[in-house]
Amino acid sequence: MPMGYRMGLVAMKELGVEREKNHRMFALTEMGEGHPNTCMNDGIQASTGCTYGKLLMERLSYGKFAFVLYKPGKGAIRVSVKPDFIDVVAKHEFSSLRKSGVEPSEIPPGVADAIVEIVLKAPDSEMFKVERVPGFRFERPAARFNRARCSKCGEYLFERYARQVEGKTLCIPCSGFVESQLNVPKGGL
Amino acid sequence: MPMGYRMGLVAMKELGVEREKNHRMFALTEMGEGHPNTCMNDGIQASTGCTYGKLLMERLSYGKFAFVLYKPGKGAIRVSVKPDFIDVVAKHEFSSLRKSGVEPSEIPPGVADAIVEIVLKAPDSEMFKVERVPGFRFERPAARFNRARCSKCGEYLFERYARQVEGKTLCIPCSGFVESQLNVPKGGL
Repeated sequence: MPMGYRMGLVAMKELGVEREKNHRMFALTEMGEGHPNTCMNDGIQASTGCTYGKLLMERLSYGKFAFVLYKPGKGAIRVSVKPDFIDVVAKHEFSSLRKSGVEPSEIPPGVADAIVEIVLKAPDSEMFKVERVPGFRFERPAARFNRARCSKCGEYLFERYARQVEGKTLCIPCSGFVESQLNVPKGGL
Repeated sequence: MPMGYRMGLVAMKELGVEREKNHRMFALTEMGEGHPNTCMNDGIQASTGCTYGKLLMERLSYGKFAFVLYKPGKGAIRVSVKPDFIDVVAKHEFSSLRKSGVEPSEIPPGVADAIVEIVLKAPDSEMFKVERVPGFRFERPAARFNRARCSKCGEYLFERYARQVEGKTLCIPCSGFVESQLNVPKGGL
């Protein structure tokens, strides 16, 4: 998280922008899933204001230690963590404990504090590669405010997500058009 | 955001769990994109500790005012905002201003404070429908720590995302296997 927080600060400085108060900047993270270090994204959310809830953060899912800060009209900056610095962090006792299955809240405070201090004290030039990304684009569909009401469950939904079944307006769950992998149990309890 | 914060509190109480410190609880939001109110998800992140960075929040994308809090071994609770309460919020000046294109930071503080007060003061029973979701499941792939190094850009990546091109290990961007829609410009500057 502290590393992501700093990545956000570096990117904002390079792009010449402030923490986002509205909906005009995007943090596209190269982190994916099924690996550690993704909490970097929470640090990026915090420092840039590009939160997932505001639809300003999304995963590119390359499994890399990097993210792109993009502000329409200002351009895009990619900040990645240098391999040598990743080695420093990976060799630390904190990483060994996490790799052996110790959850974050069970890491001894002294160990967590030590790695946080390393991450907070290292100079930008030692930690980060910073580069412009010419031509980078990312767009969201424009927000539309119209709501529909599901004729089965009676709940509101936004029109974009309304479905039709036998001429009736339904929400996705009531329509039965839910993607199967979300509800099919895999493995045991 | 305050509404989402409260949705998280209600769900945790009903499930009998605390704010998540590790990686053992998921907030699956029914919000989607291309519509307002998604900042509800930031409130849910804050109160439940189920952050996007920790891979504990994901969109189900039904465009509905609801989310599911799921803790393996404890079950799942769905909290939705009642249509009547959505009507109250939708009729408020705050919503009219947002709908007319006024960005959050430009809403007069008095208007924002008034809607926050309405959302914070309403009793749970007036705002929320709370229900168990039997059989609900959500899984992430287990975290694997092995890293690879891209033979072109020299950067680290997690093995899950390594690609092969002519026998060489490459990251996704260097491999050229990037999904085209991310970099194809749409429309003008």
